[in-house]
Amino acid sequence: MFIAFEGGDGAGKTTQIELLRERLAAVGYDVVVTREPGGTELGADIRQVLLHGGDVAPRAEALLFAADRAHHIATVVRPALRRGAIVLQDRYIDSSVAYQGAGRELDPLEIKRLSLWATQDLVPDLTVLLDVTPQDGRRRRGQVHDRLESEQDDFHARVREHYLQLAAAEPGRYLVVDASLPREEIAAIVAERVGRP
Amino acid sequence: MFIAFEGGDGAGKTTQIELLRERLAAVGYDVVVTREPGGTELGADIRQVLLHGGDVAPRAEALLFAADRAHHIATVVRPALRRGAIVLQDRYIDSSVAYQGAGRELDPLEIKRLSLWATQDLVPDLTVLLDVTPQDGRRRRGQVHDRLESEQDDFHARVREHYLQLAAAEPGRYLVVDASLPREEIAAIVAERVGRP
Repeated sequence: MFIAFEGGDGAGKTTQIELLRERLAAVGYDVVVTREPGGTELGADIRQVLLHGGDVAPRAEALLFAADRAHHIATVVRPALRRGAIVLQDRYIDSSVAYQGAGRELDPLEIKRLSLWATQDLVPDLTVLLDVTPQDGRRRRGQVHDRLESEQDDFHARVREHYLQLAAAEPGRYLVVDASLPREEIAAIVAERVGRP
Repeated sequence: MFIAFEGGDGAGKTTQIELLRERLAAVGYDVVVTREPGGTELGADIRQVLLHGGDVAPRAEALLFAADRAHHIATVVRPALRRGAIVLQDRYIDSSVAYQGAGRELDPLEIKRLSLWATQDLVPDLTVLLDVTPQDGRRRRGQVHDRLESEQDDFHARVREHYLQLAAAEPGRYLVVDASLPREEIAAIVAERVGRP
């Protein structure tokens, strides 16, 4: 089972992944927690190139994210799924579509096509979208971490709108949760949907 | 005018680019010589990731080459062409198609599509294919330089076959020259086709 967690910066993805991991691992499931970008050694190298390489042409940036994804899915996620593990992943294709598509003015459909090529069409069984307003996200981030996070609220508003459109287009594959709810309440909603133990 | 030089390792691309550059610069043309991968600072970083990052998933490798290309074309080649320069480039899309497609078992048409997306469909005005046999190429390389160059002769034979197929499919855009000819003779053939001064 492959579960992706999506949402704006500050939505609480890391917390919810950890709460679900604890719940699943406690009853004996083989759980793999991973993230993009940077879930592999190669990905960490690519992340360095992206964050510290000065200006990067928009299509180059999209291709670097796709390269990280291709390697991560081929070497970490697919082997874990093959042995029967549950994979909980922090950010996946929807992040690229929402951030690159909404923010960088590239065609979201082309971005999606690129990622599907990179991953040989690996789609999550469930995508948990933690829906956060730009204002809540900014408050919960606490501080500026990197180039993407320092963009303005209107950027985050466009990202959020893209996420919600993606979820509306495939309601069967998404669970949209209000990220402003108490974390235990969110965890319970997610656990119910995941439906294990 | 955008001229790409293609051919197997050891075909003499660097020499022929320099001879053409000298000829064009001597009569006052603004000539830019560049290469892929690695024609930009970002490209050099990507090249380090590719050559020293351990095993790289095949699609990740193709995407990294495409990312280098996207950045290089957007920040070096297109600005040079816009100001009227002649760009002489060592390796371009055909290298990816021939090496990745022939050697790595990925679909050559998908590789081409990826590069055209990366470059927003920038196609050379002329592609000079220096056609070298695997045996000549190996002899002229003198030694093993990197991972790609250390592959076996049958790999180079497949690369050569792909190059020749690409040239045969678009004869108007290609100049195929026997790389075993004397270098001055090759330079004269190339100069005649370029047709300047």
